[in-house]
Amino acid sequence: MTTVDTPFAVLDTDRLDRNAARLRDHLATLGVPLRLHVKTSKSVEVAQRVHGNGPITVSTLAEAEHFADAGYRDVLYAVGIDPHKLPRVAALLRRGVHLTVLLDSLAQAEAVTSFAHKENLRVPALVEIDCDGHRGGVAATDPALPEIGWALGANLAGVLTHAGESYFAYTPGALREAAQNERDVAVAAATTLRGAGLPCEVVSVGSTPTAHAATDLTGVTEVRAGNYVFFDLVMAGIGVCTTDDLALTVAVTVIGHQPGRNQVITDGGWMATSRDRGTQAQAVDQGYGLVADADGRLIPGLVMTGASQEHGVLSTRDGEPVPDLPLGTRLRILPNHACATAAQHDRYHLVSGEVWARHRGW
Amino acid sequence: MTTVDTPFAVLDTDRLDRNAARLRDHLATLGVPLRLHVKTSKSVEVAQRVHGNGPITVSTLAEAEHFADAGYRDVLYAVGIDPHKLPRVAALLRRGVHLTVLLDSLAQAEAVTSFAHKENLRVPALVEIDCDGHRGGVAATDPALPEIGWALGANLAGVLTHAGESYFAYTPGALREAAQNERDVAVAAATTLRGAGLPCEVVSVGSTPTAHAATDLTGVTEVRAGNYVFFDLVMAGIGVCTTDDLALTVAVTVIGHQPGRNQVITDGGWMATSRDRGTQAQAVDQGYGLVADADGRLIPGLVMTGASQEHGVLSTRDGEPVPDLPLGTRLRILPNHACATAAQHDRYHLVSGEVWARHRGW
Repeated sequence: MTTVDTPFAVLDTDRLDRNAARLRDHLATLGVPLRLHVKTSKSVEVAQRVHGNGPITVSTLAEAEHFADAGYRDVLYAVGIDPHKLPRVAALLRRGVHLTVLLDSLAQAEAVTSFAHKENLRVPALVEIDCDGHRGGVAATDPALPEIGWALGANLAGVLTHAGESYFAYTPGALREAAQNERDVAVAAATTLRGAGLPCEVVSVGSTPTAHAATDLTGVTEVRAGNYVFFDLVMAGIGVCTTDDLALTVAVTVIGHQPGRNQVITDGGWMATSRDRGTQAQAVDQGYGLVADADGRLIPGLVMTGASQEHGVLSTRDGEPVPDLPLGTRLRILPNHACATAAQHDRYHLVSGEVWARHRGW
Repeated sequence: MTTVDTPFAVLDTDRLDRNAARLRDHLATLGVPLRLHVKTSKSVEVAQRVHGNGPITVSTLAEAEHFADAGYRDVLYAVGIDPHKLPRVAALLRRGVHLTVLLDSLAQAEAVTSFAHKENLRVPALVEIDCDGHRGGVAATDPALPEIGWALGANLAGVLTHAGESYFAYTPGALREAAQNERDVAVAAATTLRGAGLPCEVVSVGSTPTAHAATDLTGVTEVRAGNYVFFDLVMAGIGVCTTDDLALTVAVTVIGHQPGRNQVITDGGWMATSRDRGTQAQAVDQGYGLVADADGRLIPGLVMTGASQEHGVLSTRDGEPVPDLPLGTRLRILPNHACATAAQHDRYHLVSGEVWARHRGW
């Protein structure tokens, strides 16, 4: 790994394994299976390592196709379906991939049913339920929900909630509440459908914070989580993990010093870390990331405070002099948001020297 | 283009040509040649179209290698050199590429000279001069400057300034002043070197704002600019262009509606636009970008206010009801920062239907 030119993404598989075991054990006690979200790693090797060939969630059809090529057969495409994309969905179904789509409107349901009928296929679809006003979905009690269900007919597979607002839950109590609410709303939506005489086989919930905070998932059939394989400073900021759990870092090299401004300049800019400033609104703003030495040991007080395309600026949080980091020193940046940082890279360099590929595109 | 699944990057070559002609004409009146920065497009087709096989600037050695493969022979790598990377520099020099490196410290100069001596090569190097406290560089009057020059010996090629702070110059007067200062500091640094009996063949200045604002570049041998080929909302926000000049947009599709929150949901999230919020600190915060119809006509008042990985949220700036945009409607997002948005894509879809590849990595 030390012969590779910086910047590059570093993956600590010990931490990956520990993170995977933690959620696996927790969900085992709750008795609910995991549907791994692969949007964070977009790596078949990572998915194989933490989840074997188990059910997965994807954020793009390109991911679905990539993981189908690698043998995955149970895939949920968890972004509201654009009817233009249904031909690619059909192609995957015809390859024997059990691909489920997501929707939250009558217009989408009608488009899916019409397409499925024309293609003589079942296109399994979940209805997205809004549990916290975060993004998409209909309310569990919305009269539109059974209407969507009827419009889907035999394509109706169940309901899905995502507690996206749990990323802003800053106490263990708030996290538990978000998890309970996510479960309660999903189960309520299933009850609405069943009360209307419709089937609801799948009751899918999940986000990394709520997956860890949940204490009761009665009525839920699967939990989705993805970020937890790597974790990041946003997750550490809400207490779901500690900085010692971060499996993904970015290796950079010191290329300059600005003693007058108490700054160290590296060759890792936003192209390597992403522009994500997810901790900006948290109690502790971590800039573009914390700084560790080449072996991953945090350097206290040092923060990546600035980023150009291929330059990172390191400063101290408290104005103390920056440590002596000579030209050529290798460092590792702990990212705010692992999904965004990983997306800047085509491969992961394992501490062992092995290289794992990362997929991208749509 | 309309048969491609969204999201994807759209390139309007009419605007590209117009932007290229504008700077070409301006620099012709100033009598200084352009060294195109290819870090924005990372596309050989774009560079060929706006600049032929002329001199280029790169932000990574991977770019240098990629453009060398395409026949470019005069390349400036404008990020401070990490001595570990010198073997790749040597490989390019031995291929007949006139590759110039950048540095701002005695330690780097000594590493370059020692390497060049050992390899029996000349490694042309520019000394980075700090003109505005933006990032790297030594002051034009710093006694370290001639010391670095002497340490470089025959490798010394000249000086370089980059007025990075001009991105925060909000009036035509401030932009002209930034351009004048960038030129003055570069020429002063050349004078320092020459006064110490050292040669200074190259006096390189540039940034998109200052390249357009400069009125006198006496003593300057080349101007660097890259962003101007695409422009973006940050550049429009400081008055260097208008929103009608933006050549790069991101095509997205409407996948949902949240009438209760007056929101439209699209399939273009931060994976398609980047997390860049470069207009956040400007007079008008453009969120994650402005919104145009499928033909690129701005939809007044509509802003991309939120972004998840694969979801965009559109709202109105003034709380007026969002326009009627049915499921499946195609839109185009005008980005804050073209360099960051382009980096999220592997190809550009031209309005004509043609596809141009984009390079990435290090």
